[in-house]
Formats: sequence, C-alpha cells, structure tokens
Amino acid sequence: MKDTIHLLVSFDENYIPPFKTMLYSIVRNHPGERFHVWLLHGGMPEAALEVVSAFCRAQGAAFDAAAVDRAWFEHAPVSKQYPQEMYYRLLAAHILPPSLSRVLYLDPDILVINSLRPLWEMDLKDCVFAAASHSCMPEVMNGVNRYRLDTDHDYYNTGVLLMDLDKARRQVVPQEIFDCVRERALQLVLPDQDVFNALYGRCTAPLDDRVFNYDARRYRTYQLKNGGACTIDWIMRSTAILHFCGKEKPWKKGRSTMLGTLYKHYMVQAQKCSQGDIAPPSSSP
Amino acid sequence: MKDTIHLLVSFDENYIPPFKTMLYSIVRNHPGERFHVWLLHGGMPEAALEVVSAFCRAQGAAFDAAAVDRAWFEHAPVSKQYPQEMYYRLLAAHILPPSLSRVLYLDPDILVINSLRPLWEMDLKDCVFAAASHSCMPEVMNGVNRYRLDTDHDYYNTGVLLMDLDKARRQVVPQEIFDCVRERALQLVLPDQDVFNALYGRCTAPLDDRVFNYDARRYRTYQLKNGGACTIDWIMRSTAILHFCGKEKPWKKGRSTMLGTLYKHYMVQAQKCSQGDIAPPSSSP
Repeated sequence: MKDTIHLLVSFDENYIPPFKTMLYSIVRNHPGERFHVWLLHGGMPEAALEVVSAFCRAQGAAFDAAAVDRAWFEHAPVSKQYPQEMYYRLLAAHILPPSLSRVLYLDPDILVINSLRPLWEMDLKDCVFAAASHSCMPEVMNGVNRYRLDTDHDYYNTGVLLMDLDKARRQVVPQEIFDCVRERALQLVLPDQDVFNALYGRCTAPLDDRVFNYDARRYRTYQLKNGGACTIDWIMRSTAILHFCGKEKPWKKGRSTMLGTLYKHYMVQAQKCSQGDIAPPSSSP
Repeated sequence: MKDTIHLLVSFDENYIPPFKTMLYSIVRNHPGERFHVWLLHGGMPEAALEVVSAFCRAQGAAFDAAAVDRAWFEHAPVSKQYPQEMYYRLLAAHILPPSLSRVLYLDPDILVINSLRPLWEMDLKDCVFAAASHSCMPEVMNGVNRYRLDTDHDYYNTGVLLMDLDKARRQVVPQEIFDCVRERALQLVLPDQDVFNALYGRCTAPLDDRVFNYDARRYRTYQLKNGGACTIDWIMRSTAILHFCGKEKPWKKGRSTMLGTLYKHYMVQAQKCSQGDIAPPSSSP
C-alpha cells in the first residue's frame, strides 16, 4: 500500500476553478494513489470552502483547510496578481499539524500529466526544500537575480515546492520572513519567490524543471536549449508538472497553444464533474 | 441505471495500440458508463486477441471477438492502407448476435473527449445508420462524389457509424455488397466508404461532424467555415469524437499539432496502463 501524497495549496476564491482543474488532472493520472489536500487561506468564506471541500471529496481526496491570520502579513507587498496567500507556503511548516512530515506545495495554475510519486519520494538529503529553477530563463536573468538577492544559486520558482516539514519547523523562522518582506519591500519583484530564494535557496535541492516544473510558455525555448530533444512526445511521456506561469492563463478564452489545449480539455472535464454532468471518478480508493 | 453502450471495432494487429488509446479515452471520459466492445477481425492470432481482451477487461469493458470468413472478400480491392477488415462493418448486422439491436462503430484512429451518450441515444427515425459527412471537405469534392457514386447526398465518412442492427438485418443484403465491390472494383477510391455511400447513403441520418466526427487535420478549415466559432474552447467543450483521418497519424513521432498533443497524452497514459506502470482505472462499474 502506497503512502498518501500530501498536497499543499494556497489561493483565494478566484482560483477555485483552476484548482479544480489541477486536482482533476492529478487524480485522473494517478489511479491507485491517495491524496490529502491541505488549503492555507486568508479567510475564505464558508460557502467557498465547502465548494473546494466537496470537489476534493468527489475526487476521492481528503481535505483540510487552515485559516492564516491575515494580520501577520499586513505590511507585505501585495497586488491583485500577487495576493497575500502567496506567502503562506513559506509558513506552512508552522501551520500544518506536527504529525505531517512532508508536503508538496503546488500553484493552482498547474496541470499534472504524469506521476508525482518520484518527486514525492525524492531523497532530500540535507536539504529542507526541493524546487526547480526555470532553465529556459535567459542566463542574464539568473545573474541579475543572484546579484539582486545576493545568492549563489539559480533563481528557484516556488510554484512547485517539496518541503521536509520536520526540518522546516527547525530552520524556517517566521520572524525572519516578516523582516525580509518588510526590509526589502521596495525591491521585491516576485515577492514570495524573492523571499524564498534569499532566505532558503541555499537549503533547496534542485529539480529538473523539464519534469517537475515545465514552464508551459517556453516550448520553443526548451526545444532550442535541449537540441530539439524536448519534443511533444518527450513532454507527454516524461513531464509530470506543466506550469502555466505568467499572465497569459490557459483558462482564458481565445487562442490556444499545444499545451494550452491539453489544459482546456482537463478544465472542461473538471467543470463537468462540478456540475454533476458526469459522475465523479471512483478511481481513488 | 444507464444501458451499456455497445462499440464495434474492426482492425488488424497493427492497430491494437491506437485501439487502446481510443478505448482509454472513452473510459476516462465516461465515468459511470458501461461499455461492451465487439471486435470483428479476419483471423487475428490468439495472442493478439488476448492482448485486446485483457486491455478491455482492465478498462472495465466487456469484450467479444468474432472472426469473419476472409474468403467472403477475396475479390475486394485491398491495400496496406485499406485492409480487408475495413469492410466488416458493412456486414456487422449479420455477424453480431441477434439480441443486439444497436451498435456504434468507431475507427481506431479516434480520440473520444466528451460523452458519446447523446449519439448513442439518437432517434434514427426511419434511417438504418447515422454518419457524418466532413463539412470541411471542399464543396467540389462532394459534387465529384455525388457524380462518381450516383448519389444525391453528401459523402459520408464511415469512421463513425451508428447502426440500427434490427433494420440493417432486413435492409443490408450481403450479396449486394459483394456485387458492388466486384463490379466497381476499379473506380472505388476509398473502397468501403464508397460502397457504403452508394448502397446505404440514402438510409443514413446525418450527424454534425464538428461534434461526432471532427476531422482533426482541418482545424483551420473548420474555423474558416464557421466564422471563427470552432475555437479550441468550443471543441474541448462540444466535440465528442476527434477523428485523426488520413495518412499523418498522431501516434507517429515528430511534430505535433494542438489536437495531436491531446492524442499523444492519451496514448502515453494508455501505454502505461498496458505496461502495468500505473494501475488500471476503476472508474467503470
């Protein structure tokens, strides 16, 4: 019997539909696996929480929600694109129950098309986290970020974050995060990601982004960087996590891309489940 | 309790992998539905039949195979692209058990992404069959085919064929098919399809090809013909059957298209099921 995979998510009401698409894609592509979804939120209304909870139950996944005290982050830089909820993942170790020793954080703008288990079972050795830097980001941007944040590693994307919670409980000091956000408020470009890189980049194990955090905007760049090896065939077979980063979201109407089409298919199927148009899958025990 | 949907397929060993992809896409997108697969074949080896049977069982679908006497078609025009098995669908009513009153024939180069039930429950009225003509075929080709086959209807594609077997048992005369094949051998372009159109086009109800037999090569043409309305969003929501007609098959390695990417995703997942890499879905009761 495989152990349950614990997923951490954090979003506001606007992101419930993409979350559904993501969870649907996970459950559909993991027959025989069990999932437990943990939602950290900043006071989501009860009705909205019930929508998320009901969808998880229908997909055969366990669900728990924890409200984070919004006052903790009242001085953090936020905007519509970067809501407060983005920071919660950094504090997860201190909010999730002590019995939980590992969790996989996922942004809600993700589609999962192959198994998460190799990532879930990854040996983190001395590291607290595992994350990917986007290899298709221009080299100069990595340089800028190293200088800007005073780090000596590539710039990690925090959309996919495996966490050793036992180690994080010891090494992540909430006050350090608050100080970092407050002191650097003006120079933070991608706020939570900058904080993560500045404070915890050194204790993060690197993941292959082509497998566990594929930037779905960059199909051509991956192809060029990998000498043509990152074909659609390769991606469909090898990539577990497609991450639809950036402002052009795949759930928007209009033109689509090769990977965006796949997203829209899962989105429609997840919506049908929500509407009771088709019965929920019983693929999870 | 919904009634079982009976699917008819007919192919040789080479088409087992695409059949698996098709059935996998059907089962995944029809939670709560039951399927029974009927295979008409021209003497497939026992080992190959067992592969098909095991895959159907693993997907929760019932399976039966019937060997057709190959001698029946010894004078029919065949080629590698048009194997003898292509004709079997025309004779299905006389081969399938008399208790079966309706069946849905599907080519194996198909992906099913939305519910087949509206098609399955279609009222055929006085018609024996339902099929789609490809609306994105140039109008002049419809004219050529009307003249060539002496018909007064659009040219039906036989890759998706709903059959009222009770009526077909009365109206489809095997000898007429054999005569038609023999007499017109030299002028048949797409042999079985030409025979179907010439003999049974008049008793066929037209289907909307955009929903039940979308020609996956023609995305741009559908867009043009429908004033931009056949977007990827529309297709993902409304199209049930994507038909990858023609020689450029989506399972081939190399360049992909928007709909071909979706195909490859399902293909990989179906292959994993076959290899026991992931457990079979238990979504069908």
